[in-house]
Amino acid sequence: MLTLDNQQLTSQAKASREASRLLATISRETKDRVLTDLAREIDGSHAAILEANQADMTAAAGLEPAKLRRLELTSQSLARLSAGLLQVAKLPDPIGTVTVARRMPNGLNVTKVRSPLGVVAMIYEARPAVTLDAFSLCLKSGNACILKGGKESIRSSSLLAQLAHRVLHRNGLPLSILTSLCGLPREGLEHLLTLDTYIDLVIPRGGTPLIEFVCGHTRIPVVKHYHGICHIYIDQRADITQAIAICLDSKTTAPAACNAAECILIHEGAAAAVVPALVAALVERGVEVRGCKQTLTLARQQSAGAAGLVAASPEDFGREFLDLTVAMRVVKDLDEAIAHIGEFGSDHTDVILTRDEASSAAFVARVASSCTLVNASTRFNDGFELGLGAEIGISTSRVHAYGPMGLEELTTQRYVVRGEGQVRN
Amino acid sequence: MLTLDNQQLTSQAKASREASRLLATISRETKDRVLTDLAREIDGSHAAILEANQADMTAAAGLEPAKLRRLELTSQSLARLSAGLLQVAKLPDPIGTVTVARRMPNGLNVTKVRSPLGVVAMIYEARPAVTLDAFSLCLKSGNACILKGGKESIRSSSLLAQLAHRVLHRNGLPLSILTSLCGLPREGLEHLLTLDTYIDLVIPRGGTPLIEFVCGHTRIPVVKHYHGICHIYIDQRADITQAIAICLDSKTTAPAACNAAECILIHEGAAAAVVPALVAALVERGVEVRGCKQTLTLARQQSAGAAGLVAASPEDFGREFLDLTVAMRVVKDLDEAIAHIGEFGSDHTDVILTRDEASSAAFVARVASSCTLVNASTRFNDGFELGLGAEIGISTSRVHAYGPMGLEELTTQRYVVRGEGQVRN
Repeated sequence: MLTLDNQQLTSQAKASREASRLLATISRETKDRVLTDLAREIDGSHAAILEANQADMTAAAGLEPAKLRRLELTSQSLARLSAGLLQVAKLPDPIGTVTVARRMPNGLNVTKVRSPLGVVAMIYEARPAVTLDAFSLCLKSGNACILKGGKESIRSSSLLAQLAHRVLHRNGLPLSILTSLCGLPREGLEHLLTLDTYIDLVIPRGGTPLIEFVCGHTRIPVVKHYHGICHIYIDQRADITQAIAICLDSKTTAPAACNAAECILIHEGAAAAVVPALVAALVERGVEVRGCKQTLTLARQQSAGAAGLVAASPEDFGREFLDLTVAMRVVKDLDEAIAHIGEFGSDHTDVILTRDEASSAAFVARVASSCTLVNASTRFNDGFELGLGAEIGISTSRVHAYGPMGLEELTTQRYVVRGEGQVRN
Repeated sequence: MLTLDNQQLTSQAKASREASRLLATISRETKDRVLTDLAREIDGSHAAILEANQADMTAAAGLEPAKLRRLELTSQSLARLSAGLLQVAKLPDPIGTVTVARRMPNGLNVTKVRSPLGVVAMIYEARPAVTLDAFSLCLKSGNACILKGGKESIRSSSLLAQLAHRVLHRNGLPLSILTSLCGLPREGLEHLLTLDTYIDLVIPRGGTPLIEFVCGHTRIPVVKHYHGICHIYIDQRADITQAIAICLDSKTTAPAACNAAECILIHEGAAAAVVPALVAALVERGVEVRGCKQTLTLARQQSAGAAGLVAASPEDFGREFLDLTVAMRVVKDLDEAIAHIGEFGSDHTDVILTRDEASSAAFVARVASSCTLVNASTRFNDGFELGLGAEIGISTSRVHAYGPMGLEELTTQRYVVRGEGQVRN
C-alpha cells in the first residue's frame, strides 16, 4: 500500500507540472539517451525485477488466471520491454513538428506546432510493463506522467519506476518527470482526480467500473481506453474460406485482447453456406458459440459443432467475453447489421467481409468505430499494426484521439505566429 | 422560459444522436444548399428578426451595456450573419478527408479519415447570432448540435432556430440536426449534461461560473472556450514605436474580446525608454493603466498620463478587465516575464515584442499558449485572421483542439483499413 496524504499528492502533482515545463524544452538527443540508458538498466536488472515480480505473483495467488497472466513478467517479456524502449528512441520526435504553415495576406507567418500536453495521468491494471511503456511514450512526447498501476503489481511496478528514476538522475533530469503511484488507495486516487490545475489529461484503461469511477470523479479531460465489443459482419457476397480464417484469427489469437471479436453477424443470404462451416471451425478451436435461433437451426441441420454450440441469451449480444466465447446472429441485411452494431458495439473495432464494393463503402461510411476494416482481422486495430510504431492504448473516445494512441496522440497543436509589427486595425 | 421536462430532454438528445448518424453520411452539396437557403431566409426576414430582438432588448433593459451590445442585432449584423453562412458553404467539407494513408508490408491499406464527432452541445451567452454561426459550422462538419444560448436572447435565438428548421424541413432533413434550448433553466441544463450516451462534446463559452458549472456537472468531454488573460512582453531589444502601436491595437480595438491584452510586461533595460511614451499613448486613448511601482516612478518622472495612471493592486495581475484598463509591470528579464505569464496567464494568447531572435525563440518555446505571437497584436488569435475561414470560438483546453476552432476542430479522425483477407497470426 502506498501511503501519501492529500497534501503530498498535491505537491507531487505540482512538481509534475514544473517538470513538464522543463521537459517541453529538452532536446530529442536527451530524451533518446534516457530511453537507451533505461533499456540497458533493465537488461542488467532481470534478476531483481523477476524476484520482485515473483513476490507480486505470490501475493496475488488468488487472482483469476487472466489477471495473473497480465501481472507476470518473464525474461522474454523484459527483453521485449527493453526492445520497445529502443524502438521508441528511434521514432521521430513529434515535438516541434510544424503541421500547418501559411503566410497570410498581411504578411503574418502562421504555423501550427506540435507541443506536449503537459502532465498525463494514466490509471491501469496490474500490468507492470505498462509502467515503462507509458513512461517511454510520455517522455518522448515531452509529457511528465503520473502512473497508477493496479496494486497487485506494486513491487515490480515500483522497481521499474525506480530504475527509470536512476536513469533520469544520471542524466540530470528531475525525477518528477515520472511519478509512480502504484498501490495508491482509492481515496488517494479520488484526490488525484481533483488536481485539474496540474494534470492535463487522464487516461483510464480498463473495465467499466474503473472508467465510470474516473469519469465520475474528475474535471480533468479524459480519454477512455474502454472495452472492445468488436463485430464482424459477413455479407452476402463474402469469400467463405477467407471469412472463416478471419473469424478464427479475430476470436482465437488473443481472446483477452480488446481487439478480439465478440460477435459475428451473418447475412441471411449467406447463412446456409457460412454458418455450419464457421461454427464447426470455431468449435474445433475450442470456441463456445452462442447462436441466435437461425444459427442453431442451420448448424444443427448439419450437426456442426454440437459440443460447443449453445443458444444465445439476450445479454450475450453487446458483451465482451474476453475468452473463447463468441455470439453469432443471422441478420436480414446490411442495414440490420449496422443497426445491431449501433446498438451493441462499443466504437472500438468493426469489420465487414465482402467482395461487394457498395456494401463495404456503405459499412465504412455508416459504422464509425475507431477502426473499421474491410476483409481483415479485428486484431489489426493496434498501434504497431497500423504503423504508429508504438501505442499507449486504444482510445474509444472521439474527442482528442480515436483509435490507437501513439506519440502524436499525446501531443497538442498550438499556433506560433511571427510578424513584423502587424496590427489588426 | 423554455419548459421541457427531463424525459423530453432525453428524447430530444436521443433524436439528436439519430440525426447525427444520418448527417454523417449526407453530401457536401446538401449541406451547402441548406446554408445558402438559410442565408436567403435570413435576408428575407430582417423585419421579424429585428422585432424579436427588440423585444429581447426591452426585456433585458437592466443588463450591463457590454451584455446589451452582444444581445443586439442590427440590419448590418444580420447581413454579416448571412454572409458568414455563405462563406461556410464555400469552405471545403472536412468530412471524408484522408489525413494519413499508408500501405503496410502485409498489404493492408491503412487510412485515417475525418469524421464528425456526432452530437455537439454548446452553452453560450445571450448572443443570438452565435446560434446560427454554431449551427452552420456543426452542420458543415457533419455534427448535430444542441445550442443553449443565454436566456435574454430567447426570442431572437428561437426565431433564428425556427428559420433554420424551416430550411432543414424544406430540404428533407430531420429537424433534430439543430436543437435550440435557449431559455432552458439551470435544472434542465444539469440534466442535459448527464446525457453522455447521446452527446459527444460540450463546449462552454463564457466566464468562470459557467465553465465551472459545466465541468462540475458532466462526464461528457468538454472543450473550454475560457477567458483570455493575454500578455504582451516588451523585450529589451524591441522597436519602441512598433511596440506602442501593437499595445494600442491589442488593448483598444476590442477591449471586451477575449484576445485583448490585459497586461503589459516591460524588460527593465527598456523601461526608461518605453514606459513614459507607452503610458502616455494608452492614457490618451482612454485606457486606465494600473502600474507597478517602477512603472509609476518612470511615468511620473516624465509626468506621462497622470490622469489615467494608478497603482496596481495585486489582484490586477491575472485579471481579465474586458474594458479599457490594463495592468503594467517592469520585469528583470525574459525569465521573469515567462514566470509571470506562467503564473497569471490563461494559455490563451501571449506576445513577445523583440528584434532579438534568441529571445523570441525562447519565449515561443517556453510560453505554450494556444497562440504565441512575435511582433504582432494579440488580436490576431482569431479563426479568420489565422486562416481557418470561420471559427466557433477559441479553445483554451490543450486536449482535442487548442486555439481557434474551425471546421476541422469539430471532427475526429478514425481508421479505415482495407485488406484482402489478412490475418495477424
